[in-house]
Amino acid sequence: MNNLTMLTDLYQLTMLYGYFKNKKTERNSVFTMFFRDAPGLNYAVMAGNEQFLDYIRDLRFTEEDLKYLDSLNQFDRDFLDYLRTFRFTGNIDMVKEGSIIFPGEPIVRVEAPLAQAQLIETTLLTLVGHQSLIATKAHRVCLAAEGGKVMEFGLRRAQGPDAGVLGARAAVIGGCSSTSNVLAGQMFGIPVSGTHAHSWVMSFDTELDAFRAYAQAFPNNALLLVDTYDTLRSGVPNAIKVFKELREQGHKPLGIRLDSGDLAYLSIMARKMLDEAGFPEVIIVASNDLDETIIRDLKLQGAKIDLWGVGTKLITSFDRAAFGGVYKMNALETDGKMVPKIKLSDNPIKVTLPGKQELYRLYTEDGMAAADLVTLYDEKIDESQPLTIFDPVDTWKKMTLTNYKAVKMLSPMVVDGQRVFEKESLKDIRARREKQEATIWHQHLRLINPSAFKVDWSDKLWKLRSDMLHEQGKD
Amino acid sequence: MNNLTMLTDLYQLTMLYGYFKNKKTERNSVFTMFFRDAPGLNYAVMAGNEQFLDYIRDLRFTEEDLKYLDSLNQFDRDFLDYLRTFRFTGNIDMVKEGSIIFPGEPIVRVEAPLAQAQLIETTLLTLVGHQSLIATKAHRVCLAAEGGKVMEFGLRRAQGPDAGVLGARAAVIGGCSSTSNVLAGQMFGIPVSGTHAHSWVMSFDTELDAFRAYAQAFPNNALLLVDTYDTLRSGVPNAIKVFKELREQGHKPLGIRLDSGDLAYLSIMARKMLDEAGFPEVIIVASNDLDETIIRDLKLQGAKIDLWGVGTKLITSFDRAAFGGVYKMNALETDGKMVPKIKLSDNPIKVTLPGKQELYRLYTEDGMAAADLVTLYDEKIDESQPLTIFDPVDTWKKMTLTNYKAVKMLSPMVVDGQRVFEKESLKDIRARREKQEATIWHQHLRLINPSAFKVDWSDKLWKLRSDMLHEQGKD
Repeated sequence: MNNLTMLTDLYQLTMLYGYFKNKKTERNSVFTMFFRDAPGLNYAVMAGNEQFLDYIRDLRFTEEDLKYLDSLNQFDRDFLDYLRTFRFTGNIDMVKEGSIIFPGEPIVRVEAPLAQAQLIETTLLTLVGHQSLIATKAHRVCLAAEGGKVMEFGLRRAQGPDAGVLGARAAVIGGCSSTSNVLAGQMFGIPVSGTHAHSWVMSFDTELDAFRAYAQAFPNNALLLVDTYDTLRSGVPNAIKVFKELREQGHKPLGIRLDSGDLAYLSIMARKMLDEAGFPEVIIVASNDLDETIIRDLKLQGAKIDLWGVGTKLITSFDRAAFGGVYKMNALETDGKMVPKIKLSDNPIKVTLPGKQELYRLYTEDGMAAADLVTLYDEKIDESQPLTIFDPVDTWKKMTLTNYKAVKMLSPMVVDGQRVFEKESLKDIRARREKQEATIWHQHLRLINPSAFKVDWSDKLWKLRSDMLHEQGKD
Repeated sequence: MNNLTMLTDLYQLTMLYGYFKNKKTERNSVFTMFFRDAPGLNYAVMAGNEQFLDYIRDLRFTEEDLKYLDSLNQFDRDFLDYLRTFRFTGNIDMVKEGSIIFPGEPIVRVEAPLAQAQLIETTLLTLVGHQSLIATKAHRVCLAAEGGKVMEFGLRRAQGPDAGVLGARAAVIGGCSSTSNVLAGQMFGIPVSGTHAHSWVMSFDTELDAFRAYAQAFPNNALLLVDTYDTLRSGVPNAIKVFKELREQGHKPLGIRLDSGDLAYLSIMARKMLDEAGFPEVIIVASNDLDETIIRDLKLQGAKIDLWGVGTKLITSFDRAAFGGVYKMNALETDGKMVPKIKLSDNPIKVTLPGKQELYRLYTEDGMAAADLVTLYDEKIDESQPLTIFDPVDTWKKMTLTNYKAVKMLSPMVVDGQRVFEKESLKDIRARREKQEATIWHQHLRLINPSAFKVDWSDKLWKLRSDMLHEQGKD
C-alpha cells in the first residue's frame, strides 16, 4: 500500500480547517473506536492494526496533495502550510490483533491534539473495520468446520485488490490455514494453496488425459477437480485410475475436489469409492458458495469433507458486509482541563460513553473470562478486593467476583507519535486468537443464538454518563 | 495501484506450470467473462475496464516475484525462466464502461495463448467484478432518488482502501454526483463533498457556537449537521439562527444534514421550519444507513430530502456483496484448428456457451433496445432482412424484428498485446451510461420485480451448444 494520507473523507479536512481557523487544532482530545452489535457480530476478532500503524507512520501531505487541496478552493494558504508539516504526535492504544472483542467496548483509544485525532478517523475505521470483519467471518467459518481446515480462496470475488490481499491476511488471523492469493502469500508469508480449474480439464481431449497431465506435473501434490463432466460416473473413477498410476510410480496421491452438486451426497459416495479402491487416506476437498451455515449443515448430514475451500462468502463477509465500526469523541481539553464529552441520540444504544476510558477483561480462577469492564482511565482495580459488576441497562443484574484477575486489553501502540509496539508475525497473532478463544465460554461464540458476553461499566463511568445525560438530556 | 501480476490465485500458476510441462502454453484459446442473474443483478453497469487494462499493460513477473515462487518448491527453473519473459500478447474485447449489461452475455472476450488467457482470469474478475457491482448498486440507489443527487460517502465502511477508492469511481459511473473520498477525488477528478461530524459540534461549548464557527469557516458552503443533541428543538433552530446571520453578512446559506431518527418526519418538520423562517432555498441532506429501498420508501412518505448521502450500503453493495462474475473457456486450438469447448453441469444454467462469440444489441426503430443477441463470431447479421430471435430455453417464444439496428457491444481494447482503446474520462463514461439507460425500457431496470431483458442466442450458437450437449452429455 502507498501513502494513505489522502484516503479520508473531505469532512475531516473541512473540520480541520474549521479547527485551524478557530485555533483549536492543538487542544488535547480523546476518541475511541468501538463496534455495534449486529447479527454475526456479537463478538469479533480484532485485526488490521498493523496496516493502521503503517498509515500513522507515513502520515504526511505531499506537495501534490496540497496542490490538489488548493484546487478545491475551500482552504486558504495558511491552512495548507499547516498541513505541510502535519504529523501524528499523539498516543494510540489498541486491543492487540487476534483478540476476541465485543460490541460497545473501546477497542482503540486515541489521545492526541484535536486535529490529529480527528483526521485519522476514516482510515482507522476502514483498515481495522475491514480486517476485523473478515477475521470474524473466517473465525465463524472455521468454528463451523470444527477443526477441519479451511482454505480462503475468494480473491476473484473480493471488493478490489486490497480487499483480496488484506482479506486473506485477516482470514488467516481468523483461522484459515491457507489462501489461494499469491500476492497475500508473498506479502505476509501465508501458506498458499490451489490446484486447477475446469478450464484445465477442458483443455485436454479427455478428463483422464487432463488428470494424468496434472498428476505428472504435481506427482506429490495431485488434487484433482472431479466435477467438470460427471462427478461419480467420470470424475471420481478417472481420479482413482490416476491415483493408482501415481501409487505405482511411488507417489502419494493427495485428493479430489468437489465444486458443484449435492456436496453431502457426492462426498459420501466419493469417499466410499475412494475407500473401496484402496485410497482411504486421499482427502476430499469441497467448495461452491460455502459459508458457516452450509458447512455446519453439511457436517450434520454426515458429509465426508476433509478440507473446505471458502471463497465469496468469506472474503466479502457476504451476509454482513460491513463491520459498523464507529469513532467518537470522549473528552476534550477546555481551559487546560480535560472535559468529558457525550453524544446524545434518540436511540439510547447510540449514546456514547464519556471520558477517557480503560478496558479490562476479568478472568475467574479457572482462567475463563467472566466479563469485560469499561472504567474511567484513572480508576484502579484492586484484585485483592471483591468486585461487583452490574448490567449497564438492567442495573439490578449484578455479579460479584472474588479471586479474579483484571487484565488491561488496550496496549500502547504509539506514544508521542512514535510506534512502540513491535510488529508481530501472523503466527503470533493467530496464537493469541486461539489462546483468547479458549478463555471465552462457547455459548458466547456459537453461531446460532449466542448469549451475550457481559460488557459492563464501572460505577464511576455509569454515574458520569448518567449525570451527563440528565444534565444535557432530553427533558 | 502497484503492479498486480501476483494478484492471482495459486491455481492459475499451477495450471500454467502444467501447460508449460505439456507444451500447451502457446495454444490459441478464447475465454469469456459473464455474470449470473441474482436479485439486484438482473442488469448491471459495466465498470473497471480501465484498471484491468492497466494491469494487462504492467503484467510482468519481477525477480522478487520469481524468487518467491521458487521458494514454494512447486515449480522448476525452466518454468521460472518462462515466467520471466511472460507478457500478454493476445486480444481483449470488452463492453465499454458505463454500458448496461445483462446476465449470461459475454462482457469480456479474451483471445490469447492459453497460458496468458488463463493467468489473467482472477484479476479480471476482481477488478471488473468489483467495480461493476458498485456501479450497479449506485445506479439502483440513484434510480430510487429519482433525479435527486446522491453523494457517495462510504469510505470508512469500505472493504479496504481500494474498495473505497475504486468503489467511489464506480459509484460515479453508476450515477452518484460526488464522493467524500479525497483520494478518489484526487485520482479520478471526481467532485468531492463533505461537511462536519458530530465531533465538531461536541468540540464546542454549545451547538450554536459550533454552527457559527463552521459558518464562518465556510460562509458560502455551510451545511450544518443538526442531530447531535435534538434535531427539531436544538439543531434546526440553531441552524436557522446562523443562516440569518450569514444572510445578514451577504452570504447564501447552503443547508442542513439529518443523520439519525425518523428521516421522513424530521425532514418534513425541518422543511416547514426552514420555509417559515424564510429559507425555502436551503437544502436538506439526509444520511443514515440509506439504500435504494429506504430512499424509495422515504420518497413515498413525502420526505423533504434534496440530497442523499449514501455510505455503507452502497460502497459494500451490502445486500449483494459480490458480482458473481465467471470466466470460462469457449474454444481451444487443437491440431491447428479452433475447437469449441463447453463446461457441463448438473445445473443447466451453469452449462457454458461454446465457441468464440459476438454480442449484439438489437434496437428497434424508436431507438429502444429490443434484445441482446449472442452469436458465433463469424456470423453476419444482415439488417436489411427480418431477424427472428427466440428464447434459448422456451424456444417457442419467438420475436421477429424488422427495421432494426444490430450494434456490436464488444469493442477491441487490446490487440496483439497493445492497448488500442483510448482512456476515457469519467464524464464520458457516465454519459454513455445515461445514453444507454435511455434505450432500455424501464420495466427491465425497476427495483422490484423487474422483467427480464431478452438475451437470446443465434440459431447457430443454439445448435452448436445443443449438439455438444447431446454428444458429451449426461445420458
